Amino acid sequence: MIYMPAFSDLLTFMRLPHRKDLSGADLAIIGVPFDTGGSFRIGARFAPGAIRAASGGLRRYHPYHRLAPFEVLRAVDFGDVATVPGYARESADAITEQLRQVLHPGCVPIFLGGDHSVSYPELRALAAVHGPLALVHFDAHTDTWPSQYGQPLGHGTPFHRALEEGLLLPGHSIQIGLRGPLPAPGDEHLPSRAGFEVVPMDELTPFDAGALAARIRRRVGDRPVFLSFDVDVLDPACAPATGTPEIGGLLTREVLAVLRRLVGLRFAGFDVVEVLPHLDPAQVTAITAANLVFEFSALVAASRPARGAQPS
Amino acid sequence: MIYMPAFSDLLTFMRLPHRKDLSGADLAIIGVPFDTGGSFRIGARFAPGAIRAASGGLRRYHPYHRLAPFEVLRAVDFGDVATVPGYARESADAITEQLRQVLHPGCVPIFLGGDHSVSYPELRALAAVHGPLALVHFDAHTDTWPSQYGQPLGHGTPFHRALEEGLLLPGHSIQIGLRGPLPAPGDEHLPSRAGFEVVPMDELTPFDAGALAARIRRRVGDRPVFLSFDVDVLDPACAPATGTPEIGGLLTREVLAVLRRLVGLRFAGFDVVEVLPHLDPAQVTAITAANLVFEFSALVAASRPARGAQPS
Amino acid sequence: MIYMPAFSDLLTFMRLPHRKDLSGADLAIIGVPFDTGGSFRIGARFAPGAIRAASGGLRRYHPYHRLAPFEVLRAVDFGDVATVPGYARESADAITEQLRQVLHPGCVPIFLGGDHSVSYPELRALAAVHGPLALVHFDAHTDTWPSQYGQPLGHGTPFHRALEEGLLLPGHSIQIGLRGPLPAPGDEHLPSRAGFEVVPMDELTPFDAGALAARIRRRVGDRPVFLSFDVDVLDPACAPATGTPEIGGLLTREVLAVLRRLVGLRFAGFDVVEVLPHLDPAQVTAITAANLVFEFSALVAASRPARGAQPS
Amino acid sequence: MIYMPAFSDLLTFMRLPHRKDLSGADLAIIGVPFDTGGSFRIGARFAPGAIRAASGGLRRYHPYHRLAPFEVLRAVDFGDVATVPGYARESADAITEQLRQVLHPGCVPIFLGGDHSVSYPELRALAAVHGPLALVHFDAHTDTWPSQYGQPLGHGTPFHRALEEGLLLPGHSIQIGLRGPLPAPGDEHLPSRAGFEVVPMDELTPFDAGALAARIRRRVGDRPVFLSFDVDVLDPACAPATGTPEIGGLLTREVLAVLRRLVGLRFAGFDVVEVLPHLDPAQVTAITAANLVFEFSALVAASRPARGAQPS
Amino acid sequence: MIYMPAFSDLLTFMRLPHRKDLSGADLAIIGVPFDTGGSFRIGARFAPGAIRAASGGLRRYHPYHRLAPFEVLRAVDFGDVATVPGYARESADAITEQLRQVLHPGCVPIFLGGDHSVSYPELRALAAVHGPLALVHFDAHTDTWPSQYGQPLGHGTPFHRALEEGLLLPGHSIQIGLRGPLPAPGDEHLPSRAGFEVVPMDELTPFDAGALAARIRRRVGDRPVFLSFDVDVLDPACAPATGTPEIGGLLTREVLAVLRRLVGLRFAGFDVVEVLPHLDPAQVTAITAANLVFEFSALVAASRPARGAQPS
Amino acid sequence: MIYMPAFSDLLTFMRLPHRKDLSGADLAIIGVPFDTGGSFRIGARFAPGAIRAASGGLRRYHPYHRLAPFEVLRAVDFGDVATVPGYARESADAITEQLRQVLHPGCVPIFLGGDHSVSYPELRALAAVHGPLALVHFDAHTDTWPSQYGQPLGHGTPFHRALEEGLLLPGHSIQIGLRGPLPAPGDEHLPSRAGFEVVPMDELTPFDAGALAARIRRRVGDRPVFLSFDVDVLDPACAPATGTPEIGGLLTREVLAVLRRLVGLRFAGFDVVEVLPHLDPAQVTAITAANLVFEFSALVAASRPARGAQPS
Repeated sequence: MIYMPAFSDLLTFMRLPHRKDLSGADLAIIGVPFDTGGSFRIGARFAPGAIRAASGGLRRYHPYHRLAPFEVLRAVDFGDVATVPGYARESADAITEQLRQVLHPGCVPIFLGGDHSVSYPELRALAAVHGPLALVHFDAHTDTWPSQYGQPLGHGTPFHRALEEGLLLPGHSIQIGLRGPLPAPGDEHLPSRAGFEVVPMDELTPFDAGALAARIRRRVGDRPVFLSFDVDVLDPACAPATGTPEIGGLLTREVLAVLRRLVGLRFAGFDVVEVLPHLDPAQVTAITAANLVFEFSALVAASRPARGAQPS
Repeated sequence: MIYMPAFSDLLTFMRLPHRKDLSGADLAIIGVPFDTGGSFRIGARFAPGAIRAASGGLRRYHPYHRLAPFEVLRAVDFGDVATVPGYARESADAITEQLRQVLHPGCVPIFLGGDHSVSYPELRALAAVHGPLALVHFDAHTDTWPSQYGQPLGHGTPFHRALEEGLLLPGHSIQIGLRGPLPAPGDEHLPSRAGFEVVPMDELTPFDAGALAARIRRRVGDRPVFLSFDVDVLDPACAPATGTPEIGGLLTREVLAVLRRLVGLRFAGFDVVEVLPHLDPAQVTAITAANLVFEFSALVAASRPARGAQPS
Repeated sequence: MIYMPAFSDLLTFMRLPHRKDLSGADLAIIGVPFDTGGSFRIGARFAPGAIRAASGGLRRYHPYHRLAPFEVLRAVDFGDVATVPGYARESADAITEQLRQVLHPGCVPIFLGGDHSVSYPELRALAAVHGPLALVHFDAHTDTWPSQYGQPLGHGTPFHRALEEGLLLPGHSIQIGLRGPLPAPGDEHLPSRAGFEVVPMDELTPFDAGALAARIRRRVGDRPVFLSFDVDVLDPACAPATGTPEIGGLLTREVLAVLRRLVGLRFAGFDVVEVLPHLDPAQVTAITAANLVFEFSALVAASRPARGAQPS
Repeated sequence: MIYMPAFSDLLTFMRLPHRKDLSGADLAIIGVPFDTGGSFRIGARFAPGAIRAASGGLRRYHPYHRLAPFEVLRAVDFGDVATVPGYARESADAITEQLRQVLHPGCVPIFLGGDHSVSYPELRALAAVHGPLALVHFDAHTDTWPSQYGQPLGHGTPFHRALEEGLLLPGHSIQIGLRGPLPAPGDEHLPSRAGFEVVPMDELTPFDAGALAARIRRRVGDRPVFLSFDVDVLDPACAPATGTPEIGGLLTREVLAVLRRLVGLRFAGFDVVEVLPHLDPAQVTAITAANLVFEFSALVAASRPARGAQPS
Repeated sequence: MIYMPAFSDLLTFMRLPHRKDLSGADLAIIGVPFDTGGSFRIGARFAPGAIRAASGGLRRYHPYHRLAPFEVLRAVDFGDVATVPGYARESADAITEQLRQVLHPGCVPIFLGGDHSVSYPELRALAAVHGPLALVHFDAHTDTWPSQYGQPLGHGTPFHRALEEGLLLPGHSIQIGLRGPLPAPGDEHLPSRAGFEVVPMDELTPFDAGALAARIRRRVGDRPVFLSFDVDVLDPACAPATGTPEIGGLLTREVLAVLRRLVGLRFAGFDVVEVLPHLDPAQVTAITAANLVFEFSALVAASRPARGAQPS
Repeated sequence: MIYMPAFSDLLTFMRLPHRKDLSGADLAIIGVPFDTGGSFRIGARFAPGAIRAASGGLRRYHPYHRLAPFEVLRAVDFGDVATVPGYARESADAITEQLRQVLHPGCVPIFLGGDHSVSYPELRALAAVHGPLALVHFDAHTDTWPSQYGQPLGHGTPFHRALEEGLLLPGHSIQIGLRGPLPAPGDEHLPSRAGFEVVPMDELTPFDAGALAARIRRRVGDRPVFLSFDVDVLDPACAPATGTPEIGGLLTREVLAVLRRLVGLRFAGFDVVEVLPHLDPAQVTAITAANLVFEFSALVAASRPARGAQPS
């Protein structure tokens, strides 16, 4: 028997089969290598490749959820969508269009960003499938500004755009981990004015994973959920390679504890964004993102109504 | 309208006006690019530049204190003082002299070190303005040794020298976060023998920000305060790029929580020291220092007797 | 008087005398520069040198245990054992053989790995001196797999091999900090099936150092103890430069708190493994390992029956 | 007397005075921190800051040209122009507009890019002052493609756009150092079809600085010259931190030899582009760019009709 | 039309189709992610992935040979072969066996090493198809030692093993670029004693690409050629990230000049070995290797007897 | 037989015996870990350790000189001398004093700097043994300034100090590779005014090793020679990790070619200075320095009057 070592033949995320047709898939890894939306440090266009490379360190069985997600689910790696570097609007349209052609109600996408501006075209494509979505948003920043440097698209505006277009259910949405200096007085009220529930970092000390998970579950109820994870919600100690690090963030063990308590939500999609490989010499940030993708996959598997019953 | 992106035109800290004359200033950022005092890893001479570059990631409004410090305060960036690389004594004298020419009672300096030896000339200049000061000292090390490698000046001796010269009020001073191996038995008693209150790291587990802040406030009372922040009080996870890292330190969120509870102290000056940019590939340590400078600025703004009433 | 600066003349760990003959030594630092056993990221062959270089930042007196370990103990740096790069079996035999020639009951070795596969030959040599040992094992991974890539030796199998050969007392052994995805369902039960007590990371939140130390003490009793420390038990924030990082780990301050409560155990040997210097640009992982070696040394010194009574 | 060490007070390029008004200036350093045009590796938005930081290593007198350029010339550092990150067209317009407001015939700008797309707005502003310009273009790539990823603006198209708008004198322009694989057959003829003279890398072995300088001088004659220097014309050994490195390039000593032979040309402006600080751990690429800026300055000083006669 | 940016969807080398069946292929990229054979610095197991990632910077048309190799040739990316980390002998056998199952006379493999020990199993598989091969070997080291650390397999022994097994035609083989200190007197004569022609670095100053190419062509004649390229033949300036760098090597432009003059040889296979991504922060070494793979591909395309006539 | 792998047991340079008594030694490696003299980038205090670590990649036989220097010579590694960090004068005195106690006419020291200021105390100690010395000085900078930042000691002044004290024979001294901008007009004449012969970089194009070696030999004649090698004489491509890089320097192959032609000079000592390990992520600069030390050793061995005749 030939064993394929962890670092070998890693063309896709955890060596999932590569498919551009998602029709038979329950779960799809989709790269969105885009960073034209970044306002400060940049380079997330290389994140999908870096996260795939980091996935070599992952093993297939999740001992907490007691399942191997890619045995429970028919999962594929789509590769990346094309973008239009340097053209924010054209990119948002191109991403949306490509996703619309392949997404379907039975397939949960996990997007590998990209800067956070990619959530907007992702939500356009997902809402076309599921209708408006509940948002569970882990981030140091609210990303609901109406504009960035005077323009509509950027990594600070995706959820403003999504709200304008009715892609989200603000009354079932929640933002977690907000902190850090803001551009203007009142900006801390942007999300609540938009109808979001807000859990700033200040309220997470001491951290109570059970209470936070309960709050999330209460908020989203049985609506279809888009979970958007900006790695800057983590402390820079845990995720140094990101565009706009904010000190004083969460530890990965806190994040894992809350994620694992979200079994049973109606997950419609996920993204993990703002990994900048050029600033990640020990690859810790990419490894963290790869682990999150694995956690999301296990969460999808553990949340299926009749898990184990699907055709092999 | 032209928006200046975060990474642009960053000649000064947060693009503050550059002034060599501090007469009209409430707050001044002053670089002290000196590392001749370092005993192990070295390179803090590049820290003022790195902290200014990292300040591009900061926004202007502080949501906890609910103010934009540089609207409340007339703040400037002085640039750097000149030093005499390789000559500890001459440098201490040159730094003191330059500072004495510009400091005045109405202006709170925030010094960007430099290794920790810069606190000694800073204190000489500040005490000339305010008289002896209460010291609030965050550090893994006590820095009160009588000599370093047989010599009087170095980053291990600034507070010994300052005490000798009567620049500090030991009965109103406190050192926080001390830990790690020591050169000799009894060294753990150096600060208390000097009259300082000491809060070693062992007493900070579990961390209680409120209790620590109360202890600091009690200690310093209404005396003019010099807050000296060596980034090695932080865990190396949070501040890897420093001269003498000590494992087992504070998290940035713990430090922020205690700093924000110090509103109302009579702040006479601050420094943030021991950032080594050459060891900071993801710039996390410089970003942390830049955030601390912003926190200090907000603390000054929030602590002004009649804040908001100053002429614009 | 000439003071030797911290960064100078660092040919050995903390400038201990270099001796290939351990007959008069109470404690020996022994490098095992081997990484042929690594399954993913690699480079631990350079760890002994990097840990020695990082030891320059250490001072000689331990304020918690109130002793200078290398004054209490006759300690030496053996340098490294020879290995056979690329040949796992031959290396295990060569390491065992070299160690057997020098180890003796009065000398506690602290091994600088190397990937974790080095614990197997270390245990073969130690058990020849002490008989079977109690294992106190800090690690994210159980390292008790029966094979790795179809072969018997690797950094995932040392404790399986050691158990097979009767080198361990499973009923007095304990593994701490296990977490992360596993190769196959049931792998989480491998250690307990082998008779080990297991403390997965999930049980360590919130972290209670006293409780954990008590559990360890209860488990090992008065048996001779081998303490094996894989730096990946730490969160990647604290130890980024390791072969198979697992997010959600321990902080160094938590580890220090538990280690310091283990005074009085019958320590027969230690290792610290899986430091990869090429992935450690700020040297934080090597510095952490050097500190752990110092902690182990202090623990040995503090645990001696009649400490202070040995001939100087 | 106070000496300001090389690493101190470096708010501007070589500590030139900072002026937003160029009316009295002979030479101006102008940052264009833009990288939305990059097609592969990215991060040139941080290049102006990195080049200024690297300028600390420069001294003021040029021994080959026997002059101190900033004593001969009234030189200033403008700081940076604002850009619109993520919006190529809007950025090109904004850059053009800001430059048009400050450039004048008596002032030679040296632009610190930015990716190479910045040459297009720079040329729009310069041609408004001088009329169409002769181009001396050092680059591994021709950058005259009609489009990039289907769009008009990017770092592969600036000279196509400039030609379309009549900003260049192709009959007096020359491209030097072209090499590497091309997108399509025939692309190697794009520049010559546009009327440029082309000196591919193949023709530069062995390198003859005198012959190349003569060829450049012959080509440009007495026309106003824009010298555009993409650091990727250098071998990646000399300039590793660039967006699209091409192996087999020039050595810096070859480039210096040819540049120094260009005294007397009518220099209207310069840029140095495609430095990516995040990929420059030893800062060699930024240091190279800073040296080139100094060479350009010396070239301007040495080329002035009546140098030394200007009012001090 | 959708353009796929250079950094996107890079699952394979230059986005070639991924095929595990080579039956219809003229050329195959095959990763051999193995570094158990390394004697000093290590990490080549990650090279195939890093070279594929670096291939994003390549464009498809080769202007010197005037062809797009992957339009002329039916080329695929096989992905990687499995190895047995830590087991040199078992790995050599496993690699040989996997290659034997897929190689055939019509397909030229380009192997992405791996340390140089991989040439031995590659040659075993290639000689099974072609019979003994002429070797064109670019390397700082001869790699014909009879043993390494007392063992038969390692990156210093592949050509000794290959000669023993009759896989090479020493009378038609040539080694280029040898230099640096040697283990023992007489080692400089190992290759010539084995029958190889040797061109040490000393004979390559000044470098004459035409003469060297003629010498190679004369040596190999019309025999099937295996071209093995160890990146350490290059100067460390051009290829810093390699296992055993030797100062004083070739420049990439020199190597390109000689390679391009080898059109018409009967190429049976290539490898590029000893890239260590962990030591390659600006990725220059991986980029160099990717360019060499492209050069080899173009050389195969340009050397086909009736190029252009194959079915599309 | 046990083979010690290259990366193992590297406590000294190439595992030479460690001796603090040089009485029986022909050659001694002596670290001078000092960087208080640096004017810009800093960190050479870690160079001796880094060069020793890099020496693992060296093998023992020199094929050009056809000897194994450490079989011909009784060579030892002294370890490091103590310095006084932060105190230039005290350090110069301490270094001189320590060296004077151990140097003797029969022993050639090879000093591992340190910044270039260490040449001054080295020369004081060497001249006490040999009388005034001929200087062969490879450097981008002349290092004969009368002061640095207004002070007498620094890495820009060692040869001025040495000349003042009559330690050098200027009429037999030569400086090679000078280039780059200078502090003031006329500085290019400092060395010749001091009586040195000067070979600026401009005169080394094209590079003719034979001519340069002849010029050096002619200059020094039969006087005792101190060869001082600042790695910044090399192009930054070859030696990026240095304090004041100057573009346009020599390639290592050029340097090797000239050094190897210096057999027969009366070498009294060597140093290699200005390696900054923190800026050397691929360790290329330290590897280069280690190779130079090996070259110097071979040169000493090859230059002995009756080589081979010494007692074993």
